[in-house]
Amino acid sequence: MDLLFLGTSSGTPTRARNVSGLALLEDSGKGWYLIDCGEGTQHQLLRTPLTLHGLRAIFITHVHGDHCYGLPGLLASAGMARREEPLEIIAPEGIEPWLRSTFAMSHTWLPFELRFRAVETLGQWRSSQVRVEATALSHRVPSYGFSFTEARPDPKLAIDRLARDGIPRGPIWGQLARGFDVEHEGRLLCSDDYLDYGRPPRRFVIGGDNDRPALLAEACQGAHVLVHEATYGQAVTQATGNPFGHSTAAQVAGFAQQAGVPNLVLTHFSARYQPGSNRGHSIEEIRAEAAAGYEGRLFLAEDFLRLHLDRTGALQPSARPT
Amino acid sequence: MDLLFLGTSSGTPTRARNVSGLALLEDSGKGWYLIDCGEGTQHQLLRTPLTLHGLRAIFITHVHGDHCYGLPGLLASAGMARREEPLEIIAPEGIEPWLRSTFAMSHTWLPFELRFRAVETLGQWRSSQVRVEATALSHRVPSYGFSFTEARPDPKLAIDRLARDGIPRGPIWGQLARGFDVEHEGRLLCSDDYLDYGRPPRRFVIGGDNDRPALLAEACQGAHVLVHEATYGQAVTQATGNPFGHSTAAQVAGFAQQAGVPNLVLTHFSARYQPGSNRGHSIEEIRAEAAAGYEGRLFLAEDFLRLHLDRTGALQPSARPT
Repeated sequence: MDLLFLGTSSGTPTRARNVSGLALLEDSGKGWYLIDCGEGTQHQLLRTPLTLHGLRAIFITHVHGDHCYGLPGLLASAGMARREEPLEIIAPEGIEPWLRSTFAMSHTWLPFELRFRAVETLGQWRSSQVRVEATALSHRVPSYGFSFTEARPDPKLAIDRLARDGIPRGPIWGQLARGFDVEHEGRLLCSDDYLDYGRPPRRFVIGGDNDRPALLAEACQGAHVLVHEATYGQAVTQATGNPFGHSTAAQVAGFAQQAGVPNLVLTHFSARYQPGSNRGHSIEEIRAEAAAGYEGRLFLAEDFLRLHLDRTGALQPSARPT
Repeated sequence: MDLLFLGTSSGTPTRARNVSGLALLEDSGKGWYLIDCGEGTQHQLLRTPLTLHGLRAIFITHVHGDHCYGLPGLLASAGMARREEPLEIIAPEGIEPWLRSTFAMSHTWLPFELRFRAVETLGQWRSSQVRVEATALSHRVPSYGFSFTEARPDPKLAIDRLARDGIPRGPIWGQLARGFDVEHEGRLLCSDDYLDYGRPPRRFVIGGDNDRPALLAEACQGAHVLVHEATYGQAVTQATGNPFGHSTAAQVAGFAQQAGVPNLVLTHFSARYQPGSNRGHSIEEIRAEAAAGYEGRLFLAEDFLRLHLDRTGALQPSARPT
């Protein structure tokens, strides 16, 4: 499973960083999930191997424009690319009426169905590959983090239980092995009941904008990777009083250390942080501040950074897509 | 006065071309007008010398997403850049309520005022530099072209008329010379009444999506430049029946020839036209088809193409901004 960062700037794009967008790729490399969709996300995708046909679902952390203004254009382009598969959008409740009125205003008709799930009442969302839960965070508007847990880590059919329940060898076994629930002689057979797993599931926790990282403590149990905003370093928030409800690098690092998360990826940096340090603030301030409080593996996201989480739970950069 | 193309693709962005956006620059190089604002227009601006503080007004030709989905993000970024100057948006009537509801949904507050003018009832729009009129076109939805006419070409104060009307030499003369109307002793003195112009005004006609170029015949009288979509060549529309209400290169070229417009810039190309011709259609098909029917100066727009119209009415490429 891979993370591929499509946008790592907060609020407004810069020449080097787009606004928020993050792809989580299934092991196959074809199916993927989009977390947040700032303006220009579809443009970023053109520079990756990902297609709008492979997109399984979209998750929106909160309604601020830099996290959702790219939705209308991305969905319209999916339509022009003749996607027909329904698409689920898990988002705050305001997103659905806004998207529907945007398409009505612009006379846009999509050749596929949009299926909305309100993040406020999500419970659990599942595909054949992942289970997703939402955690409420603290920001100027309601904001959520999403935990993605691998659904079937190294699955093996539990032959003894299949035999016990009299389920005949054949296509049903295959369905169950691939994670699908099957109806058989009037009963629903749940794939989960007939699979054993060879190792703990891989788990990613991806935060939305948030000024209280500790709200993710429960979600981070057993997590291999935490992706969290670190919009500013402490120097900036001490000067400005942090009126915007964001986290500092130090705060997030301290939380990740305490929670024992082995990999931390910081993102959503204020445009004032630049690669060099000739003028304004250097992004290296963020790195140093986080490294001081965190002993795990630390990454600062950049646009098109791709990180592979292997089956042992090790996170490594993989080759750039372009 | 310059044209600077920010997006030249129809419908969906490609790696080489963004969706529609076109800047018209005043001679000063600071003030500018934006015609259409597809998604990612603000990103394109980051690669030009233009700023959101210098933006005088936005003109939207029609409500299709590839011409307006960039508005919320561009305006939000103008706010984050602390623009305070009110901004006029001349657009189809659906745009205002959509923008207002988009900002309400996303909890976005702008530190400057948006002033909307419905293109359907525009009459004339004026700044100190240009006069703009709208022309109704033919497309799947109501679509408009905009004619930009230089307001004060080489102005000289008409001293005889000032003397005749008893207007005292001083600051009032300066105001009138710079194109401002002035109240004096209870009368409104119109700048136009006290200026003589040294040459015909420069004039640009910029079409929206349109399948009947001849609708621009009147607007093109005295025009130096026509910018018009040529989404397809004839080969494609003959194969598809042109269900989308666009013009072919041949149609536009034939019209521009008949109207006697000396410079023609084609834009808004279907993504099927690629720079090379290894697969699909080559953009050179469009060029050849237009050149066959048009004897004036022909340009095919590309993203970041900048064209300078000098005071003699000659149109020339100028240095790329990046």
